[in-house]
Amino acid sequence: MEPSTYVTGASNSFTVRLRLTNRPGALARVTAAIGETGANIGAIDIVRVERDTLVRDITIYTGDAEQMDALAARLNRLDGVEVLHVSDRTFLLHLGGKIEVRSKTRIRTRDQLSMAYTPGVARVCRAIHGDPDSVFNLTIKGNTVAVVTDGTAVLGLGDLGPEAALPVMEGKAQLFKEFGGVNAFPICLATKDTDEIVETVRRLAPTFGGINLEDIAAPRCFEIERRLKAELDIPVFHDDQHGTAVVTTAALINALKVVDKKPEALKVVIMGVGAAGTAVARMVMNLGVENLIGFDSKGALSTARNDLNPEKLHFARHTNPHDERGPLKEVIREADVFIGLSVPGVIDEEDLQKMAPDPIVFAMANPEPEIRPERAWPHVAVMATGRSDYPNQINNVLCFPGIFKGALECRATDINEAMKLAAAQAIAATIDAHELTADYVIPSVFDKRVASAVAEAVKHAAVESGVARKTQ
Amino acid sequence: MEPSTYVTGASNSFTVRLRLTNRPGALARVTAAIGETGANIGAIDIVRVERDTLVRDITIYTGDAEQMDALAARLNRLDGVEVLHVSDRTFLLHLGGKIEVRSKTRIRTRDQLSMAYTPGVARVCRAIHGDPDSVFNLTIKGNTVAVVTDGTAVLGLGDLGPEAALPVMEGKAQLFKEFGGVNAFPICLATKDTDEIVETVRRLAPTFGGINLEDIAAPRCFEIERRLKAELDIPVFHDDQHGTAVVTTAALINALKVVDKKPEALKVVIMGVGAAGTAVARMVMNLGVENLIGFDSKGALSTARNDLNPEKLHFARHTNPHDERGPLKEVIREADVFIGLSVPGVIDEEDLQKMAPDPIVFAMANPEPEIRPERAWPHVAVMATGRSDYPNQINNVLCFPGIFKGALECRATDINEAMKLAAAQAIAATIDAHELTADYVIPSVFDKRVASAVAEAVKHAAVESGVARKTQ
Repeated sequence: MEPSTYVTGASNSFTVRLRLTNRPGALARVTAAIGETGANIGAIDIVRVERDTLVRDITIYTGDAEQMDALAARLNRLDGVEVLHVSDRTFLLHLGGKIEVRSKTRIRTRDQLSMAYTPGVARVCRAIHGDPDSVFNLTIKGNTVAVVTDGTAVLGLGDLGPEAALPVMEGKAQLFKEFGGVNAFPICLATKDTDEIVETVRRLAPTFGGINLEDIAAPRCFEIERRLKAELDIPVFHDDQHGTAVVTTAALINALKVVDKKPEALKVVIMGVGAAGTAVARMVMNLGVENLIGFDSKGALSTARNDLNPEKLHFARHTNPHDERGPLKEVIREADVFIGLSVPGVIDEEDLQKMAPDPIVFAMANPEPEIRPERAWPHVAVMATGRSDYPNQINNVLCFPGIFKGALECRATDINEAMKLAAAQAIAATIDAHELTADYVIPSVFDKRVASAVAEAVKHAAVESGVARKTQ
Repeated sequence: MEPSTYVTGASNSFTVRLRLTNRPGALARVTAAIGETGANIGAIDIVRVERDTLVRDITIYTGDAEQMDALAARLNRLDGVEVLHVSDRTFLLHLGGKIEVRSKTRIRTRDQLSMAYTPGVARVCRAIHGDPDSVFNLTIKGNTVAVVTDGTAVLGLGDLGPEAALPVMEGKAQLFKEFGGVNAFPICLATKDTDEIVETVRRLAPTFGGINLEDIAAPRCFEIERRLKAELDIPVFHDDQHGTAVVTTAALINALKVVDKKPEALKVVIMGVGAAGTAVARMVMNLGVENLIGFDSKGALSTARNDLNPEKLHFARHTNPHDERGPLKEVIREADVFIGLSVPGVIDEEDLQKMAPDPIVFAMANPEPEIRPERAWPHVAVMATGRSDYPNQINNVLCFPGIFKGALECRATDINEAMKLAAAQAIAATIDAHELTADYVIPSVFDKRVASAVAEAVKHAAVESGVARKTQ
């Protein structure tokens, strides 16, 4: 494999333990061999010095696990080099799980035990029984979210089942705490039945202040969210839909400033109208966009088509005001914005050239975007992807910790459209007018200001829209 | 209320903020007034010095919340004393909940994010999909327990509902981590239906390595546990039953050494045959006791009675080999052991005098035992209660952290009778023969050796009895 054809990264990094003959040139042969494969060296450490040999750990960033296997075999064939062990750093990080449940206080004395547990806890139980709302104050409920999945749409990998989904849900829980200060716990359900998922989440709700639905396949995710929102008095939020919609809308708000266009005048095309695409369309229209056209692999969604399922027909009815028909490659003509939530390769440079002046392209297929930025840049004004190795990464981490933090802090009964739009505007506003450029329309996921800015805006919107139970 | 009629403790402790005139005698009047009510002073701190006054925090241990209210009113009437604020320390400890979900590693860099979350996590998900057993290694499942309740039998308080049960479940989770190093998370269910509880727990199971059932009312707790044990491949343990049984059996093992009696020769009477009493009876018989008689409020359980429900009839059929009949106060004659899991006042000194020589009395009604130790001591050889303010506290904390730690470490599919008996023997064995006395038959809940000794014994028993999936 040629070095230039893949991107190395920590997620495919390994530590190789080598025994090297203690003579000049051994390490040089190793580093040369690594460099020739296109992998990168992260660190070189000495483990121990033996009589005629040295044991070293070398951390290597590769493109994928297969490449690492090939590299290890290659190193082992080098003169004076013995591969003792290969450790996959991502798997090492996962051993024993990535989160833990901890007591906030130590319980080392009789007094501590008697207040946290029996007999003292009985008074707290009676207080909650007498005043049900106090459960938000006196337990974890007020700051705890369930991250619920059935494992049917794990990342882009499909139906891997609830156990294989658990590492993603744990990662989500890490991010909830790290960025939002919110407790989140993974609930991976051994059922794919809509009714069973709804009733199970309803029965679990007493422990939680909010429900984050995750990686549940469409179309059942729509019904599950709709029914749970109606039945529960705590916020329910399908992150794959609304998190994506919020962050995409935030990026669009800033991109429109860069090109100096207004939502009302835009033509927006969205390729991919699954869970995320549908939610993005709704939010972008809430922003003021009137001319929006959705596409599946067969072309524009129009009421004239007779092959649409109920969800797509509903989409067609509420969009495409000029009833444009035909394939993306035709209808993209004069579009101001392309939003892709589909597969690589659906657009090329020619298509971009057909768009209106200063086109905005959000190519969010993962991990390989609809079109690579290198190819798009010459033809567009603003380019964004879902990837961390290009500018303008559209990443849900910018939304879910802050939006739940805000909803929990004001004990919102719902996360409604007003709160989502407030979140998008808050994310966009973290970039000042004078900082804003085509390569910086969306803040970094590590920008510490984002979650608290989102939380404040969401609380304000919750109070204004009447869903906050705590208004000060 | 007379000082001698209640026991003060941290669970009923308060911090009173007082403004005192800065003249000699003010503090003395306060401490005298507190002492006269029988409350104890824990600490006296100065908050700030004002022009002619001092603001002080005084921590006071009382018998109950009513007593604190009366005391605060009394202090406020004292000359030169103003009560500014009364803080209930137990409620303060509960604000915001007692546990938290944390990331085991920080996520502050792009590399960390790419390994814990996308894109790196995808390789871990695929690995679990390909090798389902690896979920125990690569996620929290291998060291995480659900603490499941329906809130129908919260402590001794009855059906308070799932929200009011949450503080107890959080306390349990604290103890799981503090004593056993096990992650535990509260699952408080908004259903009391046996079928619904069983199916909900079954659907939740993918995240968890074990299920601790808690505070679920009898008789439904029996069926729920039985069905879940049959349906799930992870251990299911109803702590109110089996935790109590294990610790009671541990105390009995040591008490029998003190009085030099053998299980086979004993006559044991058990007052209270609910969830805990039934489990205690079964375990004590597994220890070798043959003559065991259970009692409800109407007398000895005998097959001759025609007022027994199915559970009690089953109990009667397998116990009471000499078919003794009548009230406890008669049948207790010549009994070697009395085990109470009932209500205060069911036995008195006269009853104890009817027992065999060197009687053993475990009076575990909570918080007020069947008979107070002060009254029993003159007539018994060994006395134990559920209380922390007397010697020999029979407390489930000695069992559940270690038994789950052991079961999880060997990936047991069940917690069976052999494992429970091994746990009881391990708890008993933490007290050496030369340390053993009538007042020390059961170790302290803070004895750090207990949980790991229990875990080791339980693992060994799991391997021996063929339920361990990991045998080394």
